[in-house]
Amino acid sequence: MSRVVSESLIKSQEHDRNYAKALDDVDPLRVFRDRFVIDDELVYLDGNSLGRLPRATVERLQRVVAEQWGRRLIRAWDEGWLELPIEVGDRLGTAALGAAPGQTIVGDSTTVCFYKLASAALDLRPGRNQIVTDYDNFPTDRYVLEGLGRDRGLELVFLRGDPSYGPMPGDVLNLVGGQTALVTFSHVSYRSAHIADMAQISEIAHGAGALTLWDLSHSAGSVPVQLDADGADLAVGCTYKYLNAGPGAPAFMYARADLQAQLRQPIWGWLGRRNPFEMEHGYDPAPGVTALLSGTPPVLALSAVDEGVGLVEEAGIERIRAKGVALTEFAIGLADARLAEGGVSVASPRDPAHRGAHVALVHPAAKRLCAALIKRGVIPDFRRPDVIRFGLSPLTTRFTDVWDGVETLRTLL
Amino acid sequence: MSRVVSESLIKSQEHDRNYAKALDDVDPLRVFRDRFVIDDELVYLDGNSLGRLPRATVERLQRVVAEQWGRRLIRAWDEGWLELPIEVGDRLGTAALGAAPGQTIVGDSTTVCFYKLASAALDLRPGRNQIVTDYDNFPTDRYVLEGLGRDRGLELVFLRGDPSYGPMPGDVLNLVGGQTALVTFSHVSYRSAHIADMAQISEIAHGAGALTLWDLSHSAGSVPVQLDADGADLAVGCTYKYLNAGPGAPAFMYARADLQAQLRQPIWGWLGRRNPFEMEHGYDPAPGVTALLSGTPPVLALSAVDEGVGLVEEAGIERIRAKGVALTEFAIGLADARLAEGGVSVASPRDPAHRGAHVALVHPAAKRLCAALIKRGVIPDFRRPDVIRFGLSPLTTRFTDVWDGVETLRTLL
Repeated sequence: MSRVVSESLIKSQEHDRNYAKALDDVDPLRVFRDRFVIDDELVYLDGNSLGRLPRATVERLQRVVAEQWGRRLIRAWDEGWLELPIEVGDRLGTAALGAAPGQTIVGDSTTVCFYKLASAALDLRPGRNQIVTDYDNFPTDRYVLEGLGRDRGLELVFLRGDPSYGPMPGDVLNLVGGQTALVTFSHVSYRSAHIADMAQISEIAHGAGALTLWDLSHSAGSVPVQLDADGADLAVGCTYKYLNAGPGAPAFMYARADLQAQLRQPIWGWLGRRNPFEMEHGYDPAPGVTALLSGTPPVLALSAVDEGVGLVEEAGIERIRAKGVALTEFAIGLADARLAEGGVSVASPRDPAHRGAHVALVHPAAKRLCAALIKRGVIPDFRRPDVIRFGLSPLTTRFTDVWDGVETLRTLL
Repeated sequence: MSRVVSESLIKSQEHDRNYAKALDDVDPLRVFRDRFVIDDELVYLDGNSLGRLPRATVERLQRVVAEQWGRRLIRAWDEGWLELPIEVGDRLGTAALGAAPGQTIVGDSTTVCFYKLASAALDLRPGRNQIVTDYDNFPTDRYVLEGLGRDRGLELVFLRGDPSYGPMPGDVLNLVGGQTALVTFSHVSYRSAHIADMAQISEIAHGAGALTLWDLSHSAGSVPVQLDADGADLAVGCTYKYLNAGPGAPAFMYARADLQAQLRQPIWGWLGRRNPFEMEHGYDPAPGVTALLSGTPPVLALSAVDEGVGLVEEAGIERIRAKGVALTEFAIGLADARLAEGGVSVASPRDPAHRGAHVALVHPAAKRLCAALIKRGVIPDFRRPDVIRFGLSPLTTRFTDVWDGVETLRTLL
């Protein structure tokens, strides 16, 4: 959309549903909503917990199931299945992560991927005994680090920042040192939507001799990431949020090209070995990013990731980002104008440059309000103790959805 | 089928296709073939690499995709998705593994599951520095153990038996001792189809103070397993072979009930934590077998596992086993009578009590022969260096398929 038009509309003092409708009408991504299976009754503001179902995925899965699994059977492994992890990874890396080919691969769950890369990073920094992460990082990342810390006798050093923001370079600088093996943050905070400064934090970590591992779960497909340019070492991320790949879809891993030769992930499986079907004795890692694989790739799920990535590629991550900014600006404007008097405050960065595609609204009765919203057909997410999270997925969320969500909340307050 | 009829037919000296046809006609499981999507042109003898597509799975996946993901979206997690890993695990444990409920759960890839349980077992035997496994064990198991061994400074002790059989209790007894932390074998050998004596080997391992970890990939859904009765400690297995759950479908893990409280798997993720959605600080493992989970469960794939297990449950593992015995007996009889003069020998146990549902046929030109068979519409599997493996999946393989496979091979020789 024209930024001039949208910004003037967004910033207008007169808030009514027609403004939202007008914003939808000029939204250049509006056509993408039709590419998804959508029940128009529902105001779905949780696409960052589980993205919607692309129509192309329905067809792709039918094809993979009926034609490939059903008819080609074992032969399909040599007819494209084996290449899926790396092909889908490259496609995703290019479309949304700023990662040149050969560095991204789709594999296990986000948790398992995070474990593999964190473990591999720690192996590369023997003798250092600290891991730096955010106190407000997503739980599974914290738990994995806690487990690795216990196994290796390492200390977890928590950055305790403002929970309405996220890790700030200055705070990171204060925490890292000669004992820091690994610095790991979420690029976009799952709570506040704060976007961490990947370039600066990478530089600070590298200055201390540490490696970086980024969790891109709330970035991938909504906020352009520049892994190569920003000097990231390692990254993982989820595909069932803004990449719309389906419930429990496999995650991706990124490993910077010049790190791959040294990197050794801990789960040595046959698909990560050179010439796996030779079934030889002795593990010999496959060249490149393939060595990050372990077991047999989940073909159905990978096909769904491919379709989800295809939509992001087609829409363009910059256009997706522009709409994400517009949606969150609109939501914050409405919250200030129409929810503040009901006791709701915004706990996401106000500068859109530092904010991903969701908005955290704080209210003491957040839990009860979320339950009541769901009963009225508005689906947000509740984040303890007091956050109502509106996830605004640029390919499917309309400005009128934001309006309707806010209005429903207002009537509840 | 009547064992009397089938055995007399199988053992008949007169081999022709009509015998095979007659065996099919009296096969009580023949109706199950119609429950799968089947292209009748193909003689598919590789159901132990990738099982066929159940018709019910096509419908189930469509339903899960269109109705649950498409319409219920995030709400579906509270409408059954979260329980899938344990429900499908219990169903599988009861139907095919001799495992009482609360001990089996479906999670990550076989490789990742094997890594988790092997690592957890080693943690329970600190100070012991040996892992005993089969030199001919499936590669991914060997590689995982090699990685764990390297990380922990443990020695891999290989049992080197007759590759046409598998680990024998006497050989295991000679290898284990006070330094043995873990004894791990495949229950059914992926090459020879030899069935290991789980009860005796468990007893020997326990006598030395070691734990056991069984890979049931080639047993689950074809050979009845008695995990509880045979004293197994831990087990993993694949679902895309005889459980027909689709390419790269997730594996299952079993942990004996009285071991669960001590067991701590290494990948501490949110779904293995008590009250994961509280998102609290500090990892506190979920009670029971749920603590073996790490990341978000792969819902589509779990639904397919559920359907595959349902078919085994319905057919009954004992009837499946009876047909598996009949099919392999028939195949071996034909190989002896019609392939031996072409230089083919049988490298699977001749006693059906010690043989799973596939047959290894050895020929120096196995690789070339496999390629030629595939060109003629017969799909076996090649196992280096010289094995043509005929996988006979009792729910879908006909006696005429065995006949046609053998005859096609005979014309090639």
